[in-house]
Amino acid sequence: MYLEDYTVGRVFTLDPVSATQDEIIEFARQFDPQPFHVDPDLPNNPFGGVIASGWHTCALTMRSLVAGYFSPESSLGSPGIDEIRWAAPVRPGDQLSVTAEILENRRSVSKPDRGIIRGRVTVTNQDGVVVLTLVALNLIRARP
Amino acid sequence: MYLEDYTVGRVFTLDPVSATQDEIIEFARQFDPQPFHVDPDLPNNPFGGVIASGWHTCALTMRSLVAGYFSPESSLGSPGIDEIRWAAPVRPGDQLSVTAEILENRRSVSKPDRGIIRGRVTVTNQDGVVVLTLVALNLIRARP
Repeated sequence: MYLEDYTVGRVFTLDPVSATQDEIIEFARQFDPQPFHVDPDLPNNPFGGVIASGWHTCALTMRSLVAGYFSPESSLGSPGIDEIRWAAPVRPGDQLSVTAEILENRRSVSKPDRGIIRGRVTVTNQDGVVVLTLVALNLIRARP
Repeated sequence: MYLEDYTVGRVFTLDPVSATQDEIIEFARQFDPQPFHVDPDLPNNPFGGVIASGWHTCALTMRSLVAGYFSPESSLGSPGIDEIRWAAPVRPGDQLSVTAEILENRRSVSKPDRGIIRGRVTVTNQDGVVVLTLVALNLIRARP
Protein backbone atom coordinates (compact mmCIF):
# COMPACT_ATOMS: atom_id res chain seq x y z
CA MET A 1 0.00 0.00 0.00
CA TYR A 2 1.06 3.54 -0.75
CA LEU A 3 -0.27 7.01 0.03
CA GLU A 4 -2.84 6.74 -2.78
CA ASP A 5 -4.44 3.72 -1.08
CA TYR A 6 -5.37 5.59 2.11
CA THR A 7 -8.47 7.23 0.66
CA VAL A 8 -10.51 9.46 2.95
CA GLY A 9 -13.36 7.47 4.49
CA ARG A 10 -11.72 4.08 3.95
CA VAL A 11 -12.10 1.86 7.04
CA PHE A 12 -9.55 -0.82 7.91
CA THR A 13 -10.73 -3.71 10.09
CA LEU A 14 -7.57 -4.96 11.76
CA ASP A 15 -6.41 -7.96 13.78
CA PRO A 16 -7.88 -8.17 17.28
CA VAL A 17 -5.50 -7.96 20.24
CA SER A 18 -5.56 -9.17 23.83
CA ALA A 19 -3.32 -9.41 26.89
CA THR A 20 -3.25 -11.85 29.79
CA GLN A 21 -3.00 -10.69 33.41
CA ASP A 22 0.66 -11.78 33.46
CA GLU A 23 1.42 -9.71 30.34
CA ILE A 24 -0.42 -6.69 31.75
CA ILE A 25 1.56 -6.91 35.00
CA GLU A 26 4.88 -7.49 33.24
CA PHE A 27 4.45 -4.46 30.95
CA ALA A 28 3.38 -2.30 33.87
CA ARG A 29 6.25 -3.44 36.12
CA GLN A 30 8.64 -2.28 33.42
CA PHE A 31 6.98 0.99 32.42
CA ASP A 32 3.97 1.97 34.54
CA PRO A 33 4.20 0.34 37.99
CA GLN A 34 1.15 2.01 39.52
CA PRO A 35 -0.60 -0.25 42.06
CA PHE A 36 -3.77 -0.74 39.99
CA HIS A 37 -1.66 -2.04 37.07
CA VAL A 38 0.64 -4.41 38.97
CA ASP A 39 -1.11 -5.63 42.14
CA PRO A 40 -3.99 -8.10 41.67
CA ASP A 41 -4.64 -8.01 45.44
CA LEU A 42 -4.70 -4.22 45.84
CA PRO A 43 -7.20 -3.33 48.58
CA ASN A 44 -9.86 -0.84 47.44
CA ASN A 45 -8.61 -0.92 43.85
CA PRO A 46 -10.67 1.89 42.24
CA PHE A 47 -10.96 -0.25 39.09
CA GLY A 48 -12.01 -3.48 40.81
CA GLY A 49 -8.99 -5.44 39.57
CA VAL A 50 -5.81 -5.12 37.56
CA ILE A 51 -6.21 -3.00 34.42
CA ALA A 52 -3.75 -2.52 31.57
CA SER A 53 -1.53 0.54 31.40
CA GLY A 54 -2.94 2.83 28.73
CA TRP A 55 0.48 2.70 27.07
CA HIS A 56 0.20 -1.07 26.90
CA THR A 57 -3.16 -0.76 25.13
CA CYS A 58 -1.58 1.70 22.67
CA ALA A 59 1.36 -0.64 22.06
CA LEU A 60 -0.93 -3.64 21.47
CA THR A 61 -2.98 -1.54 19.07
CA MET A 62 0.21 -0.56 17.24
CA ARG A 63 0.95 -4.26 16.66
CA SER A 64 -2.37 -4.51 14.88
CA LEU A 65 -1.72 -1.34 12.85
CA VAL A 66 1.69 -2.62 11.73
CA ALA A 67 0.12 -5.91 10.62
CA GLY A 68 -2.71 -4.46 8.58
CA TYR A 69 -2.61 -0.67 8.22
CA PHE A 70 1.01 0.12 7.37
CA SER A 71 3.18 -1.40 4.66
CA PRO A 72 6.93 -1.69 5.12
CA GLU A 73 7.53 -0.25 1.64
CA SER A 74 5.70 3.00 2.38
CA SER A 75 5.57 3.64 6.13
CA LEU A 76 8.01 6.43 7.05
CA GLY A 77 7.12 6.83 10.73
CA SER A 78 4.87 9.20 12.61
CA PRO A 79 5.20 12.82 13.66
CA GLY A 80 2.69 12.23 16.46
CA ILE A 81 -0.79 11.61 17.73
CA ASP A 82 -3.45 14.30 17.88
CA GLU A 83 -5.46 12.81 20.73
CA ILE A 84 -5.65 9.69 22.84
CA ARG A 85 -8.68 8.84 24.95
CA TRP A 86 -8.52 5.86 27.28
CA ALA A 87 -12.30 5.68 27.41
CA ALA A 88 -12.70 2.56 29.54
CA PRO A 89 -10.43 0.12 31.43
CA VAL A 90 -8.82 -2.83 29.63
CA ARG A 91 -8.86 -5.99 31.75
CA PRO A 92 -6.99 -9.29 31.44
CA GLY A 93 -8.32 -11.41 28.61
CA ASP A 94 -10.41 -8.66 26.99
CA GLN A 95 -10.79 -9.30 23.26
CA LEU A 96 -10.09 -5.98 21.61
CA SER A 97 -11.13 -5.28 18.03
CA VAL A 98 -9.29 -2.55 16.17
CA THR A 99 -10.47 -0.37 13.29
CA ALA A 100 -8.89 2.62 11.58
CA GLU A 101 -10.68 5.18 9.42
CA ILE A 102 -8.87 7.62 7.16
CA LEU A 103 -9.82 11.20 8.03
CA GLU A 104 -7.33 13.08 5.86
CA ASN A 105 -4.72 12.44 3.16
CA ARG A 106 -2.44 15.31 2.25
CA ARG A 107 0.44 15.00 -0.19
CA SER A 108 3.51 17.02 0.72
CA VAL A 109 4.04 20.10 -1.45
CA SER A 110 7.78 20.27 -0.76
CA LYS A 111 8.35 16.47 -1.07
CA PRO A 112 5.64 15.17 -3.41
CA ASP A 113 6.92 11.59 -3.16
CA ARG A 114 5.18 11.34 0.22
CA GLY A 115 2.30 12.66 2.30
CA ILE A 116 0.64 12.68 5.70
CA ILE A 117 -2.43 10.66 6.58
CA ARG A 118 -4.62 11.21 9.64
CA GLY A 119 -6.46 8.14 10.83
CA ARG A 120 -8.92 7.65 13.66
CA VAL A 121 -8.19 4.38 15.44
CA THR A 122 -10.94 2.84 17.59
CA VAL A 123 -10.46 -0.10 19.94
CA THR A 124 -13.57 -1.87 21.24
CA ASN A 125 -13.87 -4.71 23.74
CA GLN A 126 -15.96 -7.89 23.54
CA ASP A 127 -18.93 -6.09 25.12
CA GLY A 128 -18.94 -3.39 22.43
CA VAL A 129 -17.44 -0.79 24.80
CA VAL A 130 -14.92 1.58 23.23
CA VAL A 131 -11.77 1.42 25.37
CA LEU A 132 -9.40 3.55 23.27
CA THR A 133 -9.58 6.12 20.51
CA LEU A 134 -6.66 7.94 18.99
CA VAL A 135 -6.00 10.09 15.94
CA ALA A 136 -2.66 9.14 14.42
CA LEU A 137 -0.55 11.11 11.96
CA ASN A 138 1.61 9.04 9.62
CA LEU A 139 4.09 9.86 6.90
CA ILE A 140 3.51 7.56 3.91
CA ARG A 141 5.43 7.21 0.65
CA ALA A 142 3.48 7.77 -2.57
CA ARG A 143 3.39 5.08 -5.27
CA PRO A 144 6.68 5.16 -7.18
CA MET B 1 1.37 14.50 46.72
CA TYR B 2 -2.25 15.41 46.17
CA LEU B 3 -4.19 17.59 43.75
CA GLU B 4 -3.25 20.73 45.71
CA ASP B 5 0.47 20.09 45.08
CA TYR B 6 0.19 20.30 41.28
CA THR B 7 0.16 24.08 41.14
CA VAL B 8 -0.02 25.72 37.72
CA GLY B 9 3.48 26.57 36.50
CA ARG B 10 5.24 24.08 38.77
CA VAL B 11 7.97 22.21 36.90
CA PHE B 12 9.03 18.67 37.83
CA THR B 13 12.52 17.55 36.83
CA LEU B 14 12.26 13.78 36.64
CA ASP B 15 14.56 10.77 36.39
CA PRO B 16 16.35 10.44 33.05
CA VAL B 17 15.62 7.37 30.92
CA SER B 18 17.49 5.44 28.25
CA ALA B 19 17.23 2.25 26.20
CA THR B 20 19.86 -0.03 24.68
CA GLN B 21 19.65 -1.24 21.09
CA ASP B 22 18.59 -4.68 22.37
CA GLU B 23 15.77 -3.16 24.43
CA ILE B 24 14.63 -1.02 21.50
CA ILE B 25 14.55 -4.06 19.21
CA GLU B 26 12.83 -6.26 21.79
CA PHE B 27 10.05 -3.73 22.44
CA ALA B 28 9.56 -3.19 18.71
CA ARG B 29 9.48 -6.92 17.91
CA GLN B 30 6.65 -7.26 20.36
CA PHE B 31 4.62 -4.15 19.50
CA ASP B 32 5.93 -2.19 16.51
CA PRO B 33 7.95 -4.46 14.21
CA GLN B 34 8.59 -1.93 11.45
CA PRO B 35 11.95 -2.48 9.74
CA PHE B 36 13.53 0.76 11.02
CA HIS B 37 12.78 -0.31 14.62
CA VAL B 38 13.94 -3.93 14.47
CA ASP B 39 16.63 -4.31 11.77
CA PRO B 40 20.04 -2.78 12.52
CA ASP B 41 21.21 -3.76 9.01
CA LEU B 42 18.26 -2.33 7.08
CA PRO B 43 19.53 -1.05 3.71
CA ASN B 44 18.64 2.60 3.04
CA ASN B 45 17.17 3.02 6.53
CA PRO B 46 15.59 6.51 6.30
CA PHE B 47 16.74 7.16 9.89
CA GLY B 48 20.33 5.99 9.45
CA GLY B 49 20.05 3.24 12.07
CA VAL B 50 17.59 1.62 14.46
CA ILE B 51 15.35 4.11 16.25
CA ALA B 52 12.98 3.47 19.15
CA SER B 53 9.27 3.00 18.56
CA GLY B 54 7.51 6.18 19.61
CA TRP B 55 5.41 4.04 21.94
CA HIS B 56 8.58 2.80 23.59
CA THR B 57 9.69 6.38 24.20
CA CYS B 58 6.27 7.12 25.73
CA ALA B 59 6.46 4.02 27.93
CA LEU B 60 9.98 4.91 29.14
CA THR B 61 8.77 8.44 29.90
CA MET B 62 5.87 6.99 31.86
CA ARG B 63 8.33 5.12 34.08
CA SER B 64 9.87 8.46 34.95
CA LEU B 65 6.47 10.06 35.58
CA VAL B 66 5.44 7.22 37.90
CA ALA B 67 8.68 7.61 39.87
CA GLY B 68 8.51 11.36 40.39
CA TYR B 69 5.29 12.96 39.18
CA PHE B 70 2.52 10.70 40.44
CA SER B 71 1.95 9.44 43.96
CA PRO B 72 0.30 6.07 44.59
CA GLU B 73 -2.02 7.59 47.19
CA SER B 74 -3.52 10.13 44.77
CA SER B 75 -3.08 8.95 41.16
CA LEU B 76 -6.41 7.72 39.80
CA GLY B 77 -5.40 7.09 36.19
CA SER B 78 -5.65 9.10 33.01
CA PRO B 79 -8.53 9.89 30.67
CA GLY B 80 -6.05 10.52 27.86
CA ILE B 81 -3.40 12.58 26.16
CA ASP B 82 -4.13 15.79 24.29
CA GLU B 83 -1.18 15.63 21.91
CA ILE B 84 1.96 13.62 21.30
CA ARG B 85 4.76 14.88 19.07
CA TRP B 86 7.67 12.56 18.32
CA ALA B 87 9.84 15.51 17.35
CA ALA B 88 13.12 13.68 16.67
CA PRO B 89 14.33 10.06 16.56
CA VAL B 90 15.46 8.28 19.75
CA ARG B 91 18.55 6.14 19.19
CA PRO B 92 20.18 3.40 21.28
CA GLY B 93 21.94 4.80 24.33
CA ASP B 94 20.41 8.28 24.10
CA GLN B 95 20.24 9.86 27.55
CA LEU B 96 16.77 11.35 27.81
CA SER B 97 15.91 13.95 30.41
CA VAL B 98 12.26 14.35 31.36
CA THR B 99 10.43 17.38 32.69
CA ALA B 100 6.76 18.03 33.35
CA GLU B 101 5.09 21.42 33.76
CA ILE B 102 1.61 21.87 35.18
CA LEU B 103 -0.60 23.76 32.71
CA GLU B 104 -3.95 23.41 34.43
CA ASN B 105 -5.47 22.14 37.69
CA ARG B 106 -9.22 21.82 37.84
CA ARG B 107 -11.10 20.37 40.80
CA SER B 108 -14.16 18.34 39.91
CA VAL B 109 -17.46 20.05 40.67
CA SER B 110 -19.41 16.80 40.88
CA LYS B 111 -16.71 14.92 42.85
CA PRO B 112 -14.77 17.56 44.81
CA ASP B 113 -12.48 14.93 46.38
CA ARG B 114 -10.54 14.85 43.08
CA GLY B 115 -9.60 16.88 40.03
CA ILE B 116 -7.92 16.84 36.63
CA ILE B 117 -4.42 18.13 35.97
CA ARG B 118 -2.98 18.87 32.53
CA GLY B 119 0.79 18.63 32.30
CA ARG B 120 3.16 19.26 29.42
CA VAL B 121 5.87 16.59 29.39
CA THR B 122 9.08 17.30 27.49
CA VAL B 123 11.80 14.74 26.75
CA THR B 124 15.19 16.01 25.60
CA ASN B 125 18.25 14.05 24.50
CA GLN B 126 21.89 14.53 25.49
CA ASP B 127 22.37 17.04 22.64
CA GLY B 128 19.55 19.26 23.88
CA VAL B 129 17.21 18.12 21.10
CA VAL B 130 13.57 17.70 22.11
CA VAL B 131 12.54 14.18 21.05
CA LEU B 132 9.05 13.99 22.57
CA THR B 133 6.40 16.32 23.88
CA LEU B 134 3.01 15.34 25.16
CA VAL B 135 0.18 16.94 27.11
CA ALA B 136 -1.18 14.46 29.65
CA LEU B 137 -4.49 14.57 31.50
CA ASN B 138 -4.53 12.93 34.92
CA LEU B 139 -7.16 12.37 37.56
CA ILE B 140 -5.70 13.13 41.01
CA ARG B 141 -7.20 12.76 44.47
CA ALA B 142 -7.40 15.92 46.62
CA ARG B 143 -5.81 16.01 50.07
CA PRO B 144 -8.09 14.16 52.51
